[in-house]
Amino acid sequence: MKTGFIGLGNLGIVIAENLLAAQQPLYVYNRTAAKAQGLIAQGAIVCTSVQELAAQCDVVFSIVSDDAALNHITQGPDGIAAHLKPGGIHIAMSTILPDTAIALEALHRQHGSIYLAAPLMARPEAARARKINFLVSGNQEAIQQVRPLLEQAGAAGIWEFGDTAGAANVAKLSSNYLILTAMEALAEGINLARRSGIDADLWMKMLTSTIFNAPVYASYSQLILKEAFQPAGFSLKLGLKDMNLVLQQAANVQAVMPVGTQVQQLLQESVAGGLGDHDVTAVARTIGALS
Amino acid sequence: MKTGFIGLGNLGIVIAENLLAAQQPLYVYNRTAAKAQGLIAQGAIVCTSVQELAAQCDVVFSIVSDDAALNHITQGPDGIAAHLKPGGIHIAMSTILPDTAIALEALHRQHGSIYLAAPLMARPEAARARKINFLVSGNQEAIQQVRPLLEQAGAAGIWEFGDTAGAANVAKLSSNYLILTAMEALAEGINLARRSGIDADLWMKMLTSTIFNAPVYASYSQLILKEAFQPAGFSLKLGLKDMNLVLQQAANVQAVMPVGTQVQQLLQESVAGGLGDHDVTAVARTIGALS
Amino acid sequence: MKTGFIGLGNLGIVIAENLLAAQQPLYVYNRTAAKAQGLIAQGAIVCTSVQELAAQCDVVFSIVSDDAALNHITQGPDGIAAHLKPGGIHIAMSTILPDTAIALEALHRQHGSIYLAAPLMARPEAARARKINFLVSGNQEAIQQVRPLLEQAGAAGIWEFGDTAGAANVAKLSSNYLILTAMEALAEGINLARRSGIDADLWMKMLTSTIFNAPVYASYSQLILKEAFQPAGFSLKLGLKDMNLVLQQAANVQAVMPVGTQVQQLLQESVAGGLGDHDVTAVARTIGALS
Amino acid sequence: MKTGFIGLGNLGIVIAENLLAAQQPLYVYNRTAAKAQGLIAQGAIVCTSVQELAAQCDVVFSIVSDDAALNHITQGPDGIAAHLKPGGIHIAMSTILPDTAIALEALHRQHGSIYLAAPLMARPEAARARKINFLVSGNQEAIQQVRPLLEQAGAAGIWEFGDTAGAANVAKLSSNYLILTAMEALAEGINLARRSGIDADLWMKMLTSTIFNAPVYASYSQLILKEAFQPAGFSLKLGLKDMNLVLQQAANVQAVMPVGTQVQQLLQESVAGGLGDHDVTAVARTIGALS
Repeated sequence: MKTGFIGLGNLGIVIAENLLAAQQPLYVYNRTAAKAQGLIAQGAIVCTSVQELAAQCDVVFSIVSDDAALNHITQGPDGIAAHLKPGGIHIAMSTILPDTAIALEALHRQHGSIYLAAPLMARPEAARARKINFLVSGNQEAIQQVRPLLEQAGAAGIWEFGDTAGAANVAKLSSNYLILTAMEALAEGINLARRSGIDADLWMKMLTSTIFNAPVYASYSQLILKEAFQPAGFSLKLGLKDMNLVLQQAANVQAVMPVGTQVQQLLQESVAGGLGDHDVTAVARTIGALS
Repeated sequence: MKTGFIGLGNLGIVIAENLLAAQQPLYVYNRTAAKAQGLIAQGAIVCTSVQELAAQCDVVFSIVSDDAALNHITQGPDGIAAHLKPGGIHIAMSTILPDTAIALEALHRQHGSIYLAAPLMARPEAARARKINFLVSGNQEAIQQVRPLLEQAGAAGIWEFGDTAGAANVAKLSSNYLILTAMEALAEGINLARRSGIDADLWMKMLTSTIFNAPVYASYSQLILKEAFQPAGFSLKLGLKDMNLVLQQAANVQAVMPVGTQVQQLLQESVAGGLGDHDVTAVARTIGALS
Repeated sequence: MKTGFIGLGNLGIVIAENLLAAQQPLYVYNRTAAKAQGLIAQGAIVCTSVQELAAQCDVVFSIVSDDAALNHITQGPDGIAAHLKPGGIHIAMSTILPDTAIALEALHRQHGSIYLAAPLMARPEAARARKINFLVSGNQEAIQQVRPLLEQAGAAGIWEFGDTAGAANVAKLSSNYLILTAMEALAEGINLARRSGIDADLWMKMLTSTIFNAPVYASYSQLILKEAFQPAGFSLKLGLKDMNLVLQQAANVQAVMPVGTQVQQLLQESVAGGLGDHDVTAVARTIGALS
Repeated sequence: MKTGFIGLGNLGIVIAENLLAAQQPLYVYNRTAAKAQGLIAQGAIVCTSVQELAAQCDVVFSIVSDDAALNHITQGPDGIAAHLKPGGIHIAMSTILPDTAIALEALHRQHGSIYLAAPLMARPEAARARKINFLVSGNQEAIQQVRPLLEQAGAAGIWEFGDTAGAANVAKLSSNYLILTAMEALAEGINLARRSGIDADLWMKMLTSTIFNAPVYASYSQLILKEAFQPAGFSLKLGLKDMNLVLQQAANVQAVMPVGTQVQQLLQESVAGGLGDHDVTAVARTIGALS
């Protein structure tokens, strides 16, 4: 199977390198061409347009910044859907609205190709360590077909959410919701602890070695305690983008999310305050967490 | 050292039994006498008043429902402080305001005895399995003196937060804050997932076996998914009481807690709606989480 | 000037009748034809399509339910923009996003016609009493040209917000934001007063005859106190739609609106709870206001 | 009737002067004696203690900063209750918790005197113009007896809330709740309008001359638009104090107040940010309202 890869951002480039390491011939395209050039030495074949890439591949991975960017590379006369061969598979890894996935799945179907939703859970360093959890949904046969590819891409886990493209996107948004609220709760808790004069590091050590011994709490608490807001592992503006998607989905299905709206407001206040490029944990600064 | 124990609620009785198992002579008192009677067979000596118990013990454990109850058994002519012998130690395990602890520490000091704050983390079943984490603070010498007793009481961990009685209470309140917000975030996330039509059980399985693999998330998600709101492990009205203490402490130290206030409102709405005796996870019902 | 009118909902029909009373020949169109028929006796000429109406008018008023409906009647080969004569004026009275107005203004300009934003403040009974406040923005010359028409439509006040179409829409959304928050604040205040056992009617009488002697407070407090939630003067689902527009605009310009998000959640919870067709004041029921 | 007056803060001094203008002999006491001295020229008789004042008066007005201060001057061997003659009346004008009023009413009853709750609505300049609205509750006969005095004190309106002392305090807290939420809503609305690029002054002029033509909206909108945050008419820290009382009362009666909690958080964030002595409208700065 000829495989293509579109989108060489922080995470995309790591996944592309994982694929290349598995001896794949890999066709790559990136809006900013320079990033693609860097992969030639590892065996990548650089394409100069989405169209050129899609036309010669059986499977196309994509990981771009948001719904608009994914629509841009998929729709229209120059898009993936118009050029992917019949039976070809588009594995879309971006964090987007379920409705966007549903619309793109229908578009691919019209063109005789297949759209799979495959958003993923992993920071770049975890992706490099091949510890990616893929959340997938869509055409069941196609999913079985691409599992080996996902493993080559760095999968530690592949979680199947059924035959509707949007399902995996729901799972991904709901997960990011939990991550962002845990992060904000940590910021508030650490703020309370510090202002009340106790050793917040010891307090967090206690919790993260007992009932909160999960990676999310361990990593975010350290970022907040050390005020390691730059460089951003997960930037505040991306966190805000994700939380806005969460609330848009919540509005669509009439789910009240009182804590979610609160966190969205704090992220928005932080971005308005100039912290957009800091790590998402910099909301601690917005709420006045002392150090 | 003669040891006393006041407060035989759900958790208190388990800790008292742990102590009795260690061959301690144990003097016990409970407002409702019947519960104390049940411990006679295990070697308890039942006292008919706080005063009687305090007068003959070197160390007194207490675990009562709230600040008012602790003040009631500690202050006044019939209280622990007035009757505990010089050098005696009061180990107060209740979840209370730091300011209450500070005031009671001062009161004991006036009487020549010692007050230690020792709130704990453990549901009854964990306490029975001797997996209690004690958060302690106060007189350093006294803490070293009572460590063996805490181990007999079921300590898996003893975390020392310094020489101010209130410090351990801050750590405890901050911990309960994190627990309650994690719980509400789970309820909102599960609601979003379900209303969006995905398999919420699978989604939670994915998260609790990866980045959220912590006991808090594992246990609360199961309670919400199964709607196992009765009998209550941690009742909604107690959750509300704790969150009110958190926000009172936050107001004292001018810590903003936007998510905390949101969770407090939901707990209050739930109690007003008649769910006070249900498990705290029943807030899921208040926000309309479908099943 | 030949004048057209599209959209005969609760408010539209009153404004159309105001115009007819001023001896205008008035071309009318409504998706549901029956409502238009009822105006024939008053001198209306019924058109069978938007295209037919637009083609023969110099000025077209429109008042439809939302952004999508306004886009639908304005864009495309059958829309107002394609058929209104050069120099013709489209007076759009719907409550919509500023960005929608800006896009439609540009579309009209391409076709040589003019788009004016003219959202309005008035419940149907006030419109009938000719007490409408129009908020207008767009082409300055056109605004002066249509002022007499707005007066015939029932204007008590015409407020000009400048030459950008979106400006009047911002003013309208910001106004609805204030109305909806005042309403929710009243519900919470009345709830507090009642649960605390005082005479809430007297309390409101005191306030609305002193520092809160404004129509918004007078009318909404009565609706809440009397639980007059049906029929709806301003339905909960429309209130939710408006608040969602407010927050979408707030996100666009990075304005934090903590109270706004709170009210949006309560409206959403109320709609999810089946109160969508009740008056917006029925949020009082959602928060448990006793009577 | 010999009349006393305790508490010569910004508002107290104006009311005392109103009383003095009515030819009353007026016994005055203030913790900081200098303020009392200033009234001698107008006919005041300065007392050096609460006890001294209470012992020689038939009626004592008090207006002190909070619940603790009112308890301090009323309770104990030196307090008003212990020294006011049988049948004497204590008119307590402070904004306090209903429960505090209920307790003090009982205390006075034990001593054979009468406690009336008489919180008031008026900024100092309005008090000087004799436009005070008194909210009163308690012993009905006593209320009728003191009405002439309240008029001399500057009453434009006297609103009777029944025979329980706490009732008037509920009405007062509920009123301040409405004021503070209206204020925050204005700040958010003005922020949205400005960031969206419209003329916020014109927008507010439109609203305050139509559906929001009430003093609260007129005055607060001007303070926010002009950023006239100093000197404070109603300081942020007092606003926070009042909102904390509101939420304490809400917790007591299980009233959910989602908007109230949000405003409380913003006030708290503002005080933590150093704005405690600014006008309460300075929350506009906290939410980033541009000018």
